[in-house]
Amino acid sequence: MGSALALSRVTVGRISADCEDYVFPDVLAVEEPLEIRLGLPKNGRIKHHAISITMRTPGDDHELAAGFLFTEGIIHRRDQISRIRNCGLPAKGKSLQNTVVVELAEGVEVDLKRLERNFYTTSSCGVCGKSSIEALHTGVKPIGSEHNIRVPAATIHRLPEQLMSLQNTFEKTGGLHASMLLDLDGEIDLMAEDVGRHNALDKVIGRKFMNGESPMNDRILIVSGRASFELVQKALMAGIPILAAIGAPSSLAVELAAEFGMTLIGFVRNDRFNIYTGEFRIV
Amino acid sequence: MGSALALSRVTVGRISADCEDYVFPDVLAVEEPLEIRLGLPKNGRIKHHAISITMRTPGDDHELAAGFLFTEGIIHRRDQISRIRNCGLPAKGKSLQNTVVVELAEGVEVDLKRLERNFYTTSSCGVCGKSSIEALHTGVKPIGSEHNIRVPAATIHRLPEQLMSLQNTFEKTGGLHASMLLDLDGEIDLMAEDVGRHNALDKVIGRKFMNGESPMNDRILIVSGRASFELVQKALMAGIPILAAIGAPSSLAVELAAEFGMTLIGFVRNDRFNIYTGEFRIV
Repeated sequence: MGSALALSRVTVGRISADCEDYVFPDVLAVEEPLEIRLGLPKNGRIKHHAISITMRTPGDDHELAAGFLFTEGIIHRRDQISRIRNCGLPAKGKSLQNTVVVELAEGVEVDLKRLERNFYTTSSCGVCGKSSIEALHTGVKPIGSEHNIRVPAATIHRLPEQLMSLQNTFEKTGGLHASMLLDLDGEIDLMAEDVGRHNALDKVIGRKFMNGESPMNDRILIVSGRASFELVQKALMAGIPILAAIGAPSSLAVELAAEFGMTLIGFVRNDRFNIYTGEFRIV
Repeated sequence: MGSALALSRVTVGRISADCEDYVFPDVLAVEEPLEIRLGLPKNGRIKHHAISITMRTPGDDHELAAGFLFTEGIIHRRDQISRIRNCGLPAKGKSLQNTVVVELAEGVEVDLKRLERNFYTTSSCGVCGKSSIEALHTGVKPIGSEHNIRVPAATIHRLPEQLMSLQNTFEKTGGLHASMLLDLDGEIDLMAEDVGRHNALDKVIGRKFMNGESPMNDRILIVSGRASFELVQKALMAGIPILAAIGAPSSLAVELAAEFGMTLIGFVRNDRFNIYTGEFRIV
């Protein structure tokens, strides 16, 4: 997965403390807004609902849109989608269309209220991490004992190198997050890059979802940065049992992973890693 | 700026390729939801409007709320706020209140529609980076020639070390972004950390805003990660003329900085940095 649209050329001045200043051509990670719409069939026509605008790196836009709707709990199965298409005017001077419509099949009911993110609050207490986690219980299944798969520690140690080997755009720009899925033998399945780490994850999950390969309970996920609540939530929606991050997890990410039985690993680097939850899956 | 609430204690298993596995106590960066509300006075009472829920690291919550409303273009001057207070039930078993109400002064008009982020689209073309930039012209003043301040390159070279010297929580957890403001002599003004980089920036801008020190056109901003469209937008709203990032900028961040006359610097590390726009301010 990837795209020539992910790179933008500029001229940059470099200032160095120990040599002459100079000017050189450089490439940047492209960031452009993407509007995601739901298309709901009504009386033989398709009615559009604007759902979200996200700043993303162009490429795999259909996967991003489908993955976003799936990991946010708006759609649940591949067959709920009839088609995905670009629409709207292209950006001036470019062929890029920055609007994607996910058209749903006739008769599919969606809960648009979920998108208002009110699900962070419940009546049991005020706004808090605990209520954010409780609210997910309505839409997310815990990763149960039927997925008590085991993975050797050596497979986890190899993940950073595998991620780096495919991070083409990051190597050129230093500006992109990456998400990669691997099978339980540590073989690379697929990978995506994006200026937004949630977008990179939605792209890989969206690709699998569109292929009908969901839940993804026989996959390991590695992310280039930190593990936040949002990334753990999205991985849980996809049923992924093991999430490893090159960076640190947050407190709420660990609480959420513990509550739903996910294995959460952080600081995977230099032949070491930390296991925060679900240690039994690593042998 | 900072808080004991920024750290959470856990027990972690560490797996290392070259020695025995072991268990050790560790600290995590705390992530908790914060609900930001506007309080609008009406007939002698205050009516609440829920504006946003953001995942943030507790601490400086009032500054975060004020900074968010200011950098998103909802409020413009300190005297539009009558008071800021916490409300709602504390999270179970904690003293933390995760709702903040920013109460506006009598007669202040706010444009709540700005928050719907429709300002990314204009009629001139579809959704695109160009239209996102054009839409900001209604709310943001370019950084004009009256702010054609000059800063020595040596001041920029020192920024990473200054940022690291105050990043207490990051040092312990590896899990936080930081934003720091300095004056034109390179003296540290203030700094904030957060799991969200936009939150860290809103916290420092919000503190200055609440002190009546806005626009911040005699300040240098350094951010720990990458420079995205969103960070450049927020810095522009505050009138900050120089934004330096430890990481890479995105294409749209560079376009936005160029359009509004901001100096944008990236990859500030190892006694080198790249200047993408506004090179004339660095001597």
